Amino acid sequence: MKDLEGLFKHFVKDIYYAEKQVLKTLPKMARNATSDDLREAFEHHREETEGQIENLEKVFELLGLKPRGVTCEAIDGILEEGKEIMEEADKGDTRDAGMIAAAQAVEHYEITRYGTMIAWARTLGMEEAAKLLQENLDQKYAADDKLSKLGEGTLNARAA
Amino acid sequence: MKDLEGLFKHFVKDIYYAEKQVLKTLPKMARNATSDDLREAFEHHREETEGQIENLEKVFELLGLKPRGVTCEAIDGILEEGKEIMEEADKGDTRDAGMIAAAQAVEHYEITRYGTMIAWARTLGMEEAAKLLQENLDQKYAADDKLSKLGEGTLNARAA
Repeated sequence: MKDLEGLFKHFVKDIYYAEKQVLKTLPKMARNATSDDLREAFEHHREETEGQIENLEKVFELLGLKPRGVTCEAIDGILEEGKEIMEEADKGDTRDAGMIAAAQAVEHYEITRYGTMIAWARTLGMEEAAKLLQENLDQKYAADDKLSKLGEGTLNARAA
Repeated sequence: MKDLEGLFKHFVKDIYYAEKQVLKTLPKMARNATSDDLREAFEHHREETEGQIENLEKVFELLGLKPRGVTCEAIDGILEEGKEIMEEADKGDTRDAGMIAAAQAVEHYEITRYGTMIAWARTLGMEEAAKLLQENLDQKYAADDKLSKLGEGTLNARAA
């Protein structure tokens, strides 16, 4: 992580690890969702994540690197807490609300990381990489928006 | 974390721990900043964090709980990575850019958590707690914005 290119490579490996962990976790989240809309959202997000991983593999290729992640403790921590919520929260609206919160923490971590990587890729003159990362970022924003709406619905249903 | 109130209490403890860790780390980040503007931003953020911790202590009081954190592995992971960047990156624009990225990851984690907690507080009828959390959230958004601008400046200076 000595220079900006080194930092950029580190962040690409970090987010690659994060996306792969998320991909593994989403089927479990879908199985634990009570609301049909939330289950479908997690299933759709799983498919989307596969495409995002492919985009990252193209970025690795542009960098002349083999796709390989480095452990990202932030995502491990967020997912671990999500797992605890799934195990401890009462089935139904409460568990759904907790899983939405965990999923939004994932999205926000990824949003800030993609934002940084895009700015760095542009500074390094890597326009093609910036474009691929932007595709992923746009999907993250959309996913976060969808989760916010599902979250409001869950809380309104609970309050009613 | 059985019901929504339990989830809310857990999240308040989690963010309390996170803010306290951030408070401890900011002086080190300020010392490692090369740009005067970034150093001042970290110093200002440190003062702001003290006020945010006081707000959280008022929320604990409203909940009838003693202020006590629970380990938040997400924030530990983000701060640990920030520490590695400070140790490994070349002094100057590169290290500044890396620290800005780490600080923005902290802000985004906190933004998503405060957003969730405010929605839950309202559902639970805890308007006073929601107001205190909203104050913190507004400051987080402003801090993130400022970091984005400082980040652009750093990258432009580097590119020039």
